[in-house]
Amino acid sequence: MSDGAMAPQDLEAALRRIGAERYHHLHPFHKLLHAGKLKRGQVQAWALNRYYYQSRIPAKDASLLARLPTPELRRAWRKRLEDHDGTEPGTGGIARWLKLVEGVGLDRDYVVSTAGLLPATRFAVDAYVNFVRERSVLEAIASSLTELFSPGIIAERVSGMLANYDFITDETLAYFKPRLTQAPRDSDFALAYVKEHARTAEQQEAVQAALRFKCDVLWSQLDALYYAYVDPGHVPPGAFVPADHVRRS
Amino acid sequence: MSDGAMAPQDLEAALRRIGAERYHHLHPFHKLLHAGKLKRGQVQAWALNRYYYQSRIPAKDASLLARLPTPELRRAWRKRLEDHDGTEPGTGGIARWLKLVEGVGLDRDYVVSTAGLLPATRFAVDAYVNFVRERSVLEAIASSLTELFSPGIIAERVSGMLANYDFITDETLAYFKPRLTQAPRDSDFALAYVKEHARTAEQQEAVQAALRFKCDVLWSQLDALYYAYVDPGHVPPGAFVPADHVRRS
Repeated sequence: MSDGAMAPQDLEAALRRIGAERYHHLHPFHKLLHAGKLKRGQVQAWALNRYYYQSRIPAKDASLLARLPTPELRRAWRKRLEDHDGTEPGTGGIARWLKLVEGVGLDRDYVVSTAGLLPATRFAVDAYVNFVRERSVLEAIASSLTELFSPGIIAERVSGMLANYDFITDETLAYFKPRLTQAPRDSDFALAYVKEHARTAEQQEAVQAALRFKCDVLWSQLDALYYAYVDPGHVPPGAFVPADHVRRS
Repeated sequence: MSDGAMAPQDLEAALRRIGAERYHHLHPFHKLLHAGKLKRGQVQAWALNRYYYQSRIPAKDASLLARLPTPELRRAWRKRLEDHDGTEPGTGGIARWLKLVEGVGLDRDYVVSTAGLLPATRFAVDAYVNFVRERSVLEAIASSLTELFSPGIIAERVSGMLANYDFITDETLAYFKPRLTQAPRDSDFALAYVKEHARTAEQQEAVQAALRFKCDVLWSQLDALYYAYVDPGHVPPGAFVPADHVRRS
């Protein structure tokens, strides 16, 4: 570590600090969501936009899988595809997200069409897919490390949404329960990989930048939701307008 | 035109309607900017973020140029590279934009570093560069057609900013004057190309979608500026904070 590189445990601490400062559990839209401060139409907008993120996760994982060098690494990463795409029709994270979408009263086909998506959601999610495709395997794996922080936000979201919205049920939120075990399994693997392979100061800076980038991807999606749908609400041309949305004069 | 395609002049009218409904001259941030309703720090945020857009335009034009099939087309498109990158140091649109950046009181190196950029700006601009690289030549050329509408917004912006901000001078706004002749020359060429080559209904729908996409790219950049910097202002982690910015509690 003569080049100024950190010990692996210090790198882990640095990565956890990035999450503590930049993960989207700190975002005002998340706070409104779990505190029950949103109208049904605003929750719909969140579910609709977040669907696009969910739907593109297998594309990002497949492009990384294609570049992993060993059967061991590919087997480990393949679990993510199984988690999201399922093992048969109606299973997997995307199918469960569509149950959430229907549970909050949206038309499934409309959501899948992405016709009402905020352009900023598309740009942020596509930036993530492109990042994973174009950067080093080390950076691509590091960009998944936001999962280190997801059990906390999921617990907060599920308990808050169940307590505060009468249109939200356990079944609607079925997406999240498996994530509480999948995400730690995946982030343990990714963190171990990053700690082992990011040995130079330059590599360690690159993995921190990758995690900051990914935090930006998540954060900017909530920025766009807040700006478009929270009082006063500036819905961009062509995007979803909730039935209960108060149009600005 | 038996497949339901429009006559070329009807396609042009459809494209102009898209601009009338979706071009960012309608955006509330643009209205605040040219009406003199922004503080200096908010104008700085606009200049800083818009710099990234300017800086990536040659990348998008070069990737299209690389795919154009004839010397005639490449010569025509090469003018755009000359306009933006100049013919010698200190000339061209990017250099003129940096004069604007300095004129509003920003540090040039900080802006060029893009350290303070809004992530949403980066994602939107990169989406545009990727669109031009990945889609058909016809769609890539069509996505430039927002220039049909730029002389109007530039005239409004220059007169409004000169009248309303004491820190804005003719010299600061030197970027815009050449654009008043360059943009119509470029958009005349692109429009003629699109009218000639988009003959099927499918191609005509694709060029309209390309123009809507490009309007979204521009619009979402102003969405992000408004959300981050206009009252109350939610600056995302790591982005530029103007000296006169009032932090939220």
